[in-house]
This record gives sequence, C-alpha cells and structure tokens, in this order.
Amino acid sequence: MATVEIVMGSKSDFDVAAPAINILKEFGVDTGVHVLSAHRTPTEVTELASQAEKNGTKVIIAVAGKAAHLAGFIAANTVLPVVGLPVKSSFLDGMDSLLSTVMMPNGVPVATVAVGGGLNAGLLAIQMLALGDRSLMDKLRAYKAKMRADVIESNKDLKF
Amino acid sequence: MATVEIVMGSKSDFDVAAPAINILKEFGVDTGVHVLSAHRTPTEVTELASQAEKNGTKVIIAVAGKAAHLAGFIAANTVLPVVGLPVKSSFLDGMDSLLSTVMMPNGVPVATVAVGGGLNAGLLAIQMLALGDRSLMDKLRAYKAKMRADVIESNKDLKF
Amino acid sequence: MATVEIVMGSKSDFDVAAPAINILKEFGVDTGVHVLSAHRTPTEVTELASQAEKNGTKVIIAVAGKAAHLAGFIAANTVLPVVGLPVKSSFLDGMDSLLSTVMMPNGVPVATVAVGGGLNAGLLAIQMLALGDRSLMDKLRAYKAKMRADVIESNKDLKF
Amino acid sequence: MATVEIVMGSKSDFDVAAPAINILKEFGVDTGVHVLSAHRTPTEVTELASQAEKNGTKVIIAVAGKAAHLAGFIAANTVLPVVGLPVKSSFLDGMDSLLSTVMMPNGVPVATVAVGGGLNAGLLAIQMLALGDRSLMDKLRAYKAKMRADVIESNKDLKF
Amino acid sequence: MATVEIVMGSKSDFDVAAPAINILKEFGVDTGVHVLSAHRTPTEVTELASQAEKNGTKVIIAVAGKAAHLAGFIAANTVLPVVGLPVKSSFLDGMDSLLSTVMMPNGVPVATVAVGGGLNAGLLAIQMLALGDRSLMDKLRAYKAKMRADVIESNKDLKF
Amino acid sequence: MATVEIVMGSKSDFDVAAPAINILKEFGVDTGVHVLSAHRTPTEVTELASQAEKNGTKVIIAVAGKAAHLAGFIAANTVLPVVGLPVKSSFLDGMDSLLSTVMMPNGVPVATVAVGGGLNAGLLAIQMLALGDRSLMDKLRAYKAKMRADVIESNKDLKF
Amino acid sequence: MATVEIVMGSKSDFDVAAPAINILKEFGVDTGVHVLSAHRTPTEVTELASQAEKNGTKVIIAVAGKAAHLAGFIAANTVLPVVGLPVKSSFLDGMDSLLSTVMMPNGVPVATVAVGGGLNAGLLAIQMLALGDRSLMDKLRAYKAKMRADVIESNKDLKF
Amino acid sequence: MATVEIVMGSKSDFDVAAPAINILKEFGVDTGVHVLSAHRTPTEVTELASQAEKNGTKVIIAVAGKAAHLAGFIAANTVLPVVGLPVKSSFLDGMDSLLSTVMMPNGVPVATVAVGGGLNAGLLAIQMLALGDRSLMDKLRAYKAKMRADVIESNKDLKF
Repeated sequence: MATVEIVMGSKSDFDVAAPAINILKEFGVDTGVHVLSAHRTPTEVTELASQAEKNGTKVIIAVAGKAAHLAGFIAANTVLPVVGLPVKSSFLDGMDSLLSTVMMPNGVPVATVAVGGGLNAGLLAIQMLALGDRSLMDKLRAYKAKMRADVIESNKDLKF
Repeated sequence: MATVEIVMGSKSDFDVAAPAINILKEFGVDTGVHVLSAHRTPTEVTELASQAEKNGTKVIIAVAGKAAHLAGFIAANTVLPVVGLPVKSSFLDGMDSLLSTVMMPNGVPVATVAVGGGLNAGLLAIQMLALGDRSLMDKLRAYKAKMRADVIESNKDLKF
Repeated sequence: MATVEIVMGSKSDFDVAAPAINILKEFGVDTGVHVLSAHRTPTEVTELASQAEKNGTKVIIAVAGKAAHLAGFIAANTVLPVVGLPVKSSFLDGMDSLLSTVMMPNGVPVATVAVGGGLNAGLLAIQMLALGDRSLMDKLRAYKAKMRADVIESNKDLKF
Repeated sequence: MATVEIVMGSKSDFDVAAPAINILKEFGVDTGVHVLSAHRTPTEVTELASQAEKNGTKVIIAVAGKAAHLAGFIAANTVLPVVGLPVKSSFLDGMDSLLSTVMMPNGVPVATVAVGGGLNAGLLAIQMLALGDRSLMDKLRAYKAKMRADVIESNKDLKF
Repeated sequence: MATVEIVMGSKSDFDVAAPAINILKEFGVDTGVHVLSAHRTPTEVTELASQAEKNGTKVIIAVAGKAAHLAGFIAANTVLPVVGLPVKSSFLDGMDSLLSTVMMPNGVPVATVAVGGGLNAGLLAIQMLALGDRSLMDKLRAYKAKMRADVIESNKDLKF
Repeated sequence: MATVEIVMGSKSDFDVAAPAINILKEFGVDTGVHVLSAHRTPTEVTELASQAEKNGTKVIIAVAGKAAHLAGFIAANTVLPVVGLPVKSSFLDGMDSLLSTVMMPNGVPVATVAVGGGLNAGLLAIQMLALGDRSLMDKLRAYKAKMRADVIESNKDLKF
Repeated sequence: MATVEIVMGSKSDFDVAAPAINILKEFGVDTGVHVLSAHRTPTEVTELASQAEKNGTKVIIAVAGKAAHLAGFIAANTVLPVVGLPVKSSFLDGMDSLLSTVMMPNGVPVATVAVGGGLNAGLLAIQMLALGDRSLMDKLRAYKAKMRADVIESNKDLKF
Repeated sequence: MATVEIVMGSKSDFDVAAPAINILKEFGVDTGVHVLSAHRTPTEVTELASQAEKNGTKVIIAVAGKAAHLAGFIAANTVLPVVGLPVKSSFLDGMDSLLSTVMMPNGVPVATVAVGGGLNAGLLAIQMLALGDRSLMDKLRAYKAKMRADVIESNKDLKF
C-alpha cells in the first residue's frame, strides 16, 4: 500500500479528490487512490483500513458526501490519522457531509478540512508526514513562501 | 436473535431508545437490546448486522447521535429494513444526528424517524412486522383508535 | 389497488418519484402511481389512505415538497407503513420538505428517506415487502452484491 | 361554532395558545378552543374545518409544533382565512414548526405569525374581523395607542 | 386608494408580486401597486400605511427581501391586516427575508406567506375580504374546486 | 441630544445594552439611552433618527431582537453611522435578529456587531468618534494594551 | 497610505469590493486597494494594520470569504474602525463568511455589513469620515435624497 | 517549547481543552498550555506559531469559540500541523466556531475536530506523533482495544 491512501466514496468524487492527489504527487509522496463506499463495500473498506498500518500506510484521506460515513468508518478500523474531506452535496452545499464527517464521538477523531477542500486535505497529510521527514518540511516551507509571494505579486495587476 | 434488534451507539442513548423498547414489549414483539458503536466496535456491529437475517431478525433499529453512522453502517451489512432513530445531541439539537442518519446515498436506505422519536421508531418496526401478522395489524388499529379517543377526551378538561 | 401505492403531491414531483417506480418495477412489485395533494385534494387522499389496507396495499410512498404534509397526512389515515420522500424545493434545498416529513409527532411515524432519494424510497418499500417474500429478499441480496461489484469495478477506470 | 375557532394539536400547546385566547376575550370576540390533532384525529379536523364557514366561523387559528400540519390541513378544508401559530418544539427552537406552517404550496395560504407568537395570532384574527366591524377597529386603534404609550412610559424608569 | 394595496421594496420584486396582482384582478378586487422602500422612502411608506384605513384600503401586501422590514414597518403604522411576502434573496434562499418578516414582536402581527408565495399572498388578502363579501367567498369556493379538479385531471396524463 | 444615542427596542434589552453604556461612560462619552420600538413607536423613532444629526449626535446604537428592524429603520432616517446590536432572542439564538440587522439593502448600511455584543457596539461607536478626537484614540490604545496584558497575565494562573 | 484602505483576501474578491471602491471614488475619498491574505501573508497584514493609524488612514475595509479572518485580524492590530465585508462563498451562500466576520469576541469589534454588500461597506466608511467632514455629510444627504427620488420615480414605469 | 502546544483563546476555554491535556499526559506526551488570543495578543500568537517548529514543537492545538480565528491564524504562521478545536459558543451551539475553524482557504489547512471534542483533539495530535513513535502507536492500539472492551462490557448492565 502507498504512504497516503485516498479513498473516495464514489467515482463522482474524483474532482474533489484531484487537488489532494496532485499536491501529494507534487511533493513526491507515494499515493494510492481507491473508490470504496462505506455503504456499498463495507468489507473492502474494513479490510483497507485495518491493514493499512501494517502495510506501511501513514495517512488515509477519505472523500465522501451526503451522510458521509467513510472517514469515520475508516477511523474506526485503524489508529492511523484519518483526514476527512467532505464533498459538497446537493443538500445545503454539503452541510450534511461536513457534520457527518466532523462531529465524531469521543475516541475516534477525524481530521476534517473544509467542504470541497481537496488541496488542504493533501497538504494536511503532507504536514503529518513532514513531522518525520525533513525534506517534506522544507518543501512545505517553500510552498508557503511561494503562496505568500503569489499574493504579493497579485497586487501588481490591480486596476481600479 | 430477536425479531427486532435495537442497537444503541452508547449506553447514554438508552432513554431515547426506551419508548421503542416499551412499545415493542407492549405489542408482544420479541426484542433484543444492545450497546454497540459503529466507531468503537465496528467488528461487532458488522457481525450483528450481517448475521441478523439468517438468525431470524426482521427489523433493526439503530439509535445514535452526533455523526450518527450506526444506522447506515448496519444497513450496509444487511438487506433487512433498518430504522434510524437520531439522538438529540448537544449540537443544533441533533441536526448532525438527523442529517447523518437520513441523507443516505442511493442503494442503502435508512427509514428515519424524528430526532428523539423513540416511540415512532418502535411503531414503525411494528408496522413492518404487521404486514405479515394480522394480530399486530389489529393491535395497531386499536392503538390508533385509542390515540384518537385520548385526544378527543382531552377536550373535556380544557378551561379557558 | 396495487401492493405499493406511490402518491405525489404534484405532477412536477414525477422525476423525483421515477427511480422509486423503476426499482419497484425492476423487482416485479405491483405498483400504482397517483397525483394527489394533501392540500388540494384532501378528500381523495383520505379515501386512498383509509381504504389502502383493505384493498390489499402493503406500503404507501408519499412524495412531496415545501410544507410537505402528504406523508404525514396519509400516515394519519392508515396503519400501513408510509415511506416519506422529501422533494428538494426551491428553499434551502428541501430543508422545509425534510423537516415537514420526518419530524412527526408521537404515534404516527413516517419512514423518511433522503431529500430526493427516490431510489431508496423504492428499495425501502421492497425491504418491507421482502420480510414476507423470500424471492424479493433474494433479489435484494443480488442487488446489494451488484452494487458492491460495481464499486469495485469502477476502480479499474481510475486514472491519476 | 364560535367566530374564531382555535385548534391546538395537543393539550401541551395550551400555554402558547393562551395569549391568543386572552386577547380575543379582551376584545369581546366569541372564541372556541379545541384540542384536535391533524395526525391523530384527521376526521374530526376535517369535520371542523369543512363545517366552519356554514356554522358562522370567520377565522380559524391553528396551533401546532414539529411537523406542524394542522394549519395547512385545516386550510385545505375551508376557504376561511387560517392563522398558523408555530409552536417552539425541542428541535431548532421550532424551525421545523415554522417551515411546516409557512411554506404552503400555491393555492392554500396559511397566515403565519412568529414562532410562539400567540398574542399576534389573536390580534391578526381580530384585524381580519375588524374589516367588517367598526367597533373592533376602534379597539385595535386604542390598543395600538396604549402600546405606544407604554413604550414611552417605560423610559421613565431607565436608570443608567 | 385601492381595496388592496401592494407595496414592493424594489422594482426587482415585481415578478414575485405578479401572481398576487393577477389573482386579485382575476377575483375582481380593486388593487394598487407601488414601489416603496422602508429604507429609502420611509416617509412615503409611513404616509401610505397611516392613511390607508381612512382611504378605504382593507389589506396591504408588502413584498420585500433581505432584511425585509417593509411588512413590519407598514404594520407599525396601521391597524389593517398586513400580508408579508418574503422575496427569495441571494442569501440562504430567502431565510433572511422570511425571518425578518415573520418573527414580529408582540402587538404587531404580519400575516406571512411562503418565500416567493405571491399567489398565496393574493389569495390570503381575498380570503380576508371575503369575510364581508359573499360573492368573493363563492369565487374562492369555485377556485378551490377547480384546483381539486385540476389535480385529479392531471392523473390522466401519468405515464409510467 | 447626546453624542451617542442608544435606542433599545424594549426595556428587556437593557442587559444587552448595558456593556455599551458602561464602556461609553468609562471613555467619558456623552451618552443617551432610550426605549423606542420600531413597531410600537415608529413616529418617535423617526423623530429621534431624523433630528439626531442637527442635534449634535454622532453615532446611534440600535439594540433589538427577533425581526429586528430598529437599526435599519433608524438608518433609513439619518446619514449618521448606525451600529446594530442584535439581541439573542428565543429563536435560533438570535439568528433572526442577526439577519434582520445585517442583511441591509444597498444604500442603507448598518454597522452590525455580534449577537449580544454590547461591549463591542460601544467600542465601535468610540472608534468612530476617535477619528476626530485624539484623546479617545489614546484611550483606545490604552484599552487595547490592557486587554493584551490581561490575557498574558491570565497564563500565570493556569494549572494543569 | 490612503484615507480608506481596502484589503481583499484574494484577487477573486475584487468584484465584491468594486462597489465599495467606486462609491468611495464617487465621494472623492482617497482610497487604497490591496490583496493581502490573513492566512498567506500574515506579516504583511499585520504591518498594514499596525501602521495604518500613524500613516493617516482612518478606516480599513476588509473583504474576505469562507473562514473570513481578515477583518478580525486587522482589527486585532489597530484601533481604527474596521468594516467587515463578508464574501458569498460556495458554502451556504456565505454563512461561513458572515459568522466568521461578525461574531467577534469582546474588545475587538468589526463593523459588519451584509454578505456581498460592497456598496454599503463603502458608504459606512464614508459615514464615519463624514463625522469630521461637513462636505462628505452633505454628499451623503444628497445621495440619500437621490435614492429616495429614484424609488419614487420607478413607480412611473410600473405596468400591471 | 513542548512537543504539543495547546493554545486557548480565553481562560474560559479551559474546560473544553482539559480532555486534550489529560489524554496527552496519559500518553506521556510533553505538553504546554497557553492562553493567547488571536485578537487581543496577535503578536504573541505570531511569535509562538512562527517559533514552534524550530523549538521542537510538533503539533499545535488551538481552542477557540465564536469567530474562532485562532487555529487559522496559527496555521498561517507555521508549517506544523494545527488541530482546531471549536468551542461551543452561545450562538447556534458553536456553528460560528465550527465554520470559522474548518472552512479554511486553499493552502492553509486546519485539522478540525468536533465542536467541544477536546478528547479527540488530543488523540489526533497523538496519532500524528505516533507516525514516528512506535510506542505511542502501541498505546493507541491499546486505547482502542479498551474502548471496544468498555462498550461490550456495558451491555452487561442493560436492564429493560
């Protein structure tokens, strides 16, 4: 298994997951991607989650919408940190996805990012890995510096 | 296993489940009660849900709050009808519980009742059983008649 | 009357009801479809609901939006299980429809599915019927297996 | 039947209805009070609503909580104006009651007042009656003048 | 002044008000239409509201969005019944308009209809007028009968 | 009239307004306090708002709950800056008050502070006055420094 | 630095800020515009905010969406009045932006205007400046008179 | 500095932070606790956040309510992972705190846990540390096993 495993509840969630995949690739992190549903393939999700640690995975990112149980269900089956990425559904812009992901009971945390926050899901996984990988930490610093520079640069184009 | 199995996510949900237990007893339905958490005991929940049908269970009632995955997780592991009873949590009076329970994806329904609607969870299970049990149907009719009579009777005490 | 009667509050609800109709047909369940409004044709709704049981109907699915009283009004007039399918309205994506359908008072449950969850409304009715029909139960198991296989299959196309 | 009929969905709604009853009495309006539930006594509600006009009733006030169908159900059965008074329930402070009461479909209006706005429900009924009753209109003017005077008077006690 | 005065907060509210105007015309009710803003033309709104009763107006319909103060502000200046028609704004589908219109303090009711419920605003005004006008009451009964017939008729076209 | 006029919609809003009154006094700002309701005393509110500027008032603070029209109504009648202080009502913790206060239409701003944010309403008025009063600006700087010192000081008592 | 400094969290917020820029220009107020993010360029925001007062700036307008910390963060670093303009984000029409901007803790107010209320943000800044600038106050009065005239004028075109 | 630094926005947040402090102690993690406000002590927060990495801190937990900027502000100043713990405020049970914490813009993630989820904030920090500490990972596994055993054990006491 890969260092970071990304699990989407449905193939239609791919666009939301894509920025996470891309940033992980950009940072050179070994990444796996799966479509597995907590409700349609519970056995496969259990298998993936419960085997992840021993197979060398470090962080799992779960991407799901509506009654989004995927992140919590994975977290139930592993002690690895699980990042929850709520997908904007057709109901209240993903309020259902957000609450289903973040409001976890005591003992089973899910590290939730913003609704549709694919890039941040990937960055958060990288931040966790960087605690044990100086080179990733350096890249994060460079990434942050570039974001800052880009914002400052954008002032040049302002016309008003 | 019992005809109706009631699963609570936490012992603290007992008071919400109690009206369901009581009405099922009152109607003479064989009922089992369990504390099993989708997040803390996923293996046990999987086991209960996936074995329920072959063990003679007809309906499962899941009682849970916050990011309430219990009903959906059980529904993922059985073809039996699952009644979802959202528990009023400390956040938005159970809006998180309600949305986590009712907004299920295509293919895996949960028959959701009102937040805190323990009595209705039990009655709904009875209505399902009554489709194949004339005596239960008769009792439902009597119950409905009594509710009506009680409302009409309550007008006698009105003072204004 | 049919085994499952589907009642829509308005002809414009047909697209939401269609997946329920289709899955019921696919499972070979005798199904009737009606446009009847709780507010514009209360007499007809009362008639349908109160005669359903003696006419052999087993489950009623009510499809309605906004102040969605249809499911609750039908449930008031029958002891049969009533499935409530909230229609996404133009206000808060159907929050009004959802709350009007699910927050029923004690004694009169409505088995509510997700906003716009037509397929699940049909499947839930089938699950109820399957309690007394081994062949339907078998089909449900096959349906569940196919959903699982489809999810697993979808991993083959993932490109990233 | 009385000029204004107040119908509560449950005896527990009496305290919310009381200010309506009191203001109607204070204005000398003939008022009837009933406990009748849309879900437990649909026949009785239909009877009351459909007979109201011919029995001389002018306005009906419906007081209900949760999935509050009472006002809409009465409006479905009469052409008289119906005032909807949403009761603060235990869920979202009565958001369910408000939306169930106010979001009526085209053709069947309910004149909705604030959640828990018993006094205003009564005053609104009086305003409607006053269109054909000069003495009531005079009393409304006096009432309004007194409210104004009370507010101005209250400034005398301000200490800061 | 006209029997029913419709006041819109902005010319852009005309489409929401149009069904009210049309149904009032259809029922033969003398109707006036104004664009007057509680916030931009408070003096003119005060003038219109405070003079309405003596000028023969019976009901005022206020149409407004966002922080929709128009209905309440008119109600503050007259004892006539005021119908509040919340306009769907760009924020939460008009939740701001609805709450600003319906949650009036004690003593100053606004008869609120659904967000965007122009037709019902007109019908509600007609219902109020009909209390003193047998011919309007007859037309309301005919209108209701036609609505019922239309729903029943619509079943003929159902294809499934 | 005073430099800052505080207007409450009801005497019951005094506790919410008190921190504003107190901080204004503490900063030595001449402050007036009134109970005046947009709905019960519209004439008096119009008078106060439209005369404020010529009478030397600089800022008006409006304190109101529910369908909180007071701030917007005052802003409609003056070009002075108006601070809106939403009062926590019994519905959704003041969501109605907040939206009624802040969602003002183009052309008539209300400077809204947090629900129940009495202290901040006062401070905001002081910040506006301080633009033309160096001594007030100095006091604001001292106040800010003290807040900072208090937070740092509070670390001394931490026990864990 | 300019008299009014407008800070946007992202270049994509320009369209929301534009009406503020335009009205300030129309009133002849010296205005600066910046893209600076509380999260990507915290140092630059701190610098701008903490130097603003001594550099002659009077009011700062902060324009931001989602978890909109910009206004509060600027307010933390200056005693000048800060106007918060919440940007409609892709989640709940900007409910996240609104609450993040307006619900400030005691001691650090943000003068919040409506979601997307760019014009009002500019007008509010002008109102504050006008307290010390008679000519601006005159222009505000003229602006208000013109708004009123425009509304009245718009009645001429009404066709119904 | 400690391995995990916990920063509360106010001393009153201590009870929410306490379960995080306790679980970190129980797992033997070196933990620091601070009261520092993003709005009252921005300089100190910037200092702590920007120095954390070089001083050996691995994870920062930010605990804040209302317009909860603390977590995002810290994340703006470090590349370390930041856990956001929203505090239940007096408005909408902490909806403001939750949205202000979780809805971060691209590039600056905050790992958000449930409103009031102190225990999970601590556990999430431990999970991150455990990626590079086998002994912590073992303890997490034991903790999870004990949670499971406790749930199963709790079934013994069920009486119904």
